[in-house]
Amino acid sequence: MIQRVGENTLHFETGPCLLSWASVAGKKESEGPLGGYFDVCHEDTALGGKSWEQAESHLQGESINVALQKASLEPEDMDFIFAGDLLNQCISSTFGLRDLQIPFLGQYGACSTMAQALGMAAVFVESGAARRAAAVTSSHFCSAERQFRMPLEYGGQRPPTAQWTATASGAIILGREGLGPVRVREVSFGRITDLGISDANNMGAAMAPAAASTILGYFRDTNTTPEDFDLILTGDLGRVGSDLLYTLLEKENVTIRQKHNDGGLMLYDREKQDVHAGASGCGCSASVLCSIILKEMEEKKLRKVLFAATGALMSPTSTQQGESIPGISHLIFLESGNP
Amino acid sequence: MIQRVGENTLHFETGPCLLSWASVAGKKESEGPLGGYFDVCHEDTALGGKSWEQAESHLQGESINVALQKASLEPEDMDFIFAGDLLNQCISSTFGLRDLQIPFLGQYGACSTMAQALGMAAVFVESGAARRAAAVTSSHFCSAERQFRMPLEYGGQRPPTAQWTATASGAIILGREGLGPVRVREVSFGRITDLGISDANNMGAAMAPAAASTILGYFRDTNTTPEDFDLILTGDLGRVGSDLLYTLLEKENVTIRQKHNDGGLMLYDREKQDVHAGASGCGCSASVLCSIILKEMEEKKLRKVLFAATGALMSPTSTQQGESIPGISHLIFLESGNP
Repeated sequence: MIQRVGENTLHFETGPCLLSWASVAGKKESEGPLGGYFDVCHEDTALGGKSWEQAESHLQGESINVALQKASLEPEDMDFIFAGDLLNQCISSTFGLRDLQIPFLGQYGACSTMAQALGMAAVFVESGAARRAAAVTSSHFCSAERQFRMPLEYGGQRPPTAQWTATASGAIILGREGLGPVRVREVSFGRITDLGISDANNMGAAMAPAAASTILGYFRDTNTTPEDFDLILTGDLGRVGSDLLYTLLEKENVTIRQKHNDGGLMLYDREKQDVHAGASGCGCSASVLCSIILKEMEEKKLRKVLFAATGALMSPTSTQQGESIPGISHLIFLESGNP
Repeated sequence: MIQRVGENTLHFETGPCLLSWASVAGKKESEGPLGGYFDVCHEDTALGGKSWEQAESHLQGESINVALQKASLEPEDMDFIFAGDLLNQCISSTFGLRDLQIPFLGQYGACSTMAQALGMAAVFVESGAARRAAAVTSSHFCSAERQFRMPLEYGGQRPPTAQWTATASGAIILGREGLGPVRVREVSFGRITDLGISDANNMGAAMAPAAASTILGYFRDTNTTPEDFDLILTGDLGRVGSDLLYTLLEKENVTIRQKHNDGGLMLYDREKQDVHAGASGCGCSASVLCSIILKEMEEKKLRKVLFAATGALMSPTSTQQGESIPGISHLIFLESGNP
């Protein structure tokens, strides 16, 4: 049963169970601090494909297939798949998942898409609309650079505020049956928040206000504080956006510094890997969640985790036309252990 | 309560109620046979905006605002808005709906997006996740031409199979309370279907197999036939795709010719308006549904309507890379009169 709590939070009485999850990473990501946690690590950035777009599709297909295998499920056991990516018309999802023949619902929340897709899957499972549903997202550095900034061959300079789009994918399968180690307890879907940032090389600053708004709203709705959780994982604010998030929350007398981490800060070694402000992309928060975070939840090192993914809802066209960058953040409360 | 019926259909015990709906149309659409049914008709294709993208955003914001007014609701009365469009990164929805401050869930199903968004809103309302939820989509001929084909200034020739992207938007507000004239009774979300069509000027042919698959699946799941319905409305197959749909269904001994119409065939006068195979775009099926169809349902001229919107899930990049065009179709069963 789904109960509305406060202004904007959904509470799940049963709590859809994470039956399995999987993460797939590219070369740079595999060389980072989470390299040992990914299910699949690729040496070849093209993944054997003829284009970067094919490579990204392959990432997404692979992560859901590994998740299916881990749960001993076949594609026909799935009722729905919620998927999205950053590419125009979400083609990584379409081409990567086409062969599975699972009823398909394309989601677009930019880099917040994993939280959006997971929240959707949770509503569908908890309501009985689905017995099992999957959430999957991806991003690829090379396809994203070509589309959002410059083709790699141009060799453009990156300012210190820029983030590095992750070549990665993460997938989660939710179900009603079974007693998996982790459950989705609550979801807060966010509003579009736009404080007028228009620098497409400073996504963290554009998204931080959305994260602050959704996190504050969740605490209000559920009468909780950061102390009630083991980890508040945003993704992907990077260094600039994370610092701005602290400032925005502290104005409201909420301090999360001791509990916070960010997918964009975890994926790479920022000292050694030259990624400037951190990682980003639909595949960043998805692969961080589906590797170290869910592993630590499975092992009960983490019990209560807020996953607040963030997205910048612009396009190159809107930026060229002088529009600001609207942000959004969706929040998922995950709990390990049986309630 | 949501019950799964057959392999892939959701049956709603209560059935979310359409509290209101609205349609907004551009100049060419207003001059067509449905001109008298739209809530707002624009003479200025730019809608006073500085870009075609701003114009499209304005269409979408306007349709949801008119729907809110009709239901005497304020934006803060809405729990969720499900929205999408054809533009890269769905910017029409983001910028058109940003100011409403309603929790926002971006949907991408190409021209099937209105059915997807409406189905999502229905699941959220029926499950109790939302008290009220909205579905809204848009498209604009000029922004779509620039993005998917050629800038208007190029003056490219259009083959006879090509469809004309509608400059239009439609919005629907669903709720649990009240006894509105029309309810959502059932939903079948579709699978990606790809028979290898790769001609981006023949979308109807690429989408018809998806429509056939979803419609046949629904009849199987619910043990119904075309005779059980007053209208089967696809959108937007146009002339080529509609004929192909008849052929595909008749191979399975299902004849819908007497019950069928297509948003892409209804929006324009194909004899006089030079649109070749018909209309298309996220705004086409949405504006046809939210004008003549729902009016006739309200007046009980139509009681049982299947709305099966179709989408072509390609991008210019995937087409340039030689990929085929995957199609998808989502189906909504709408019923007027109280059950």
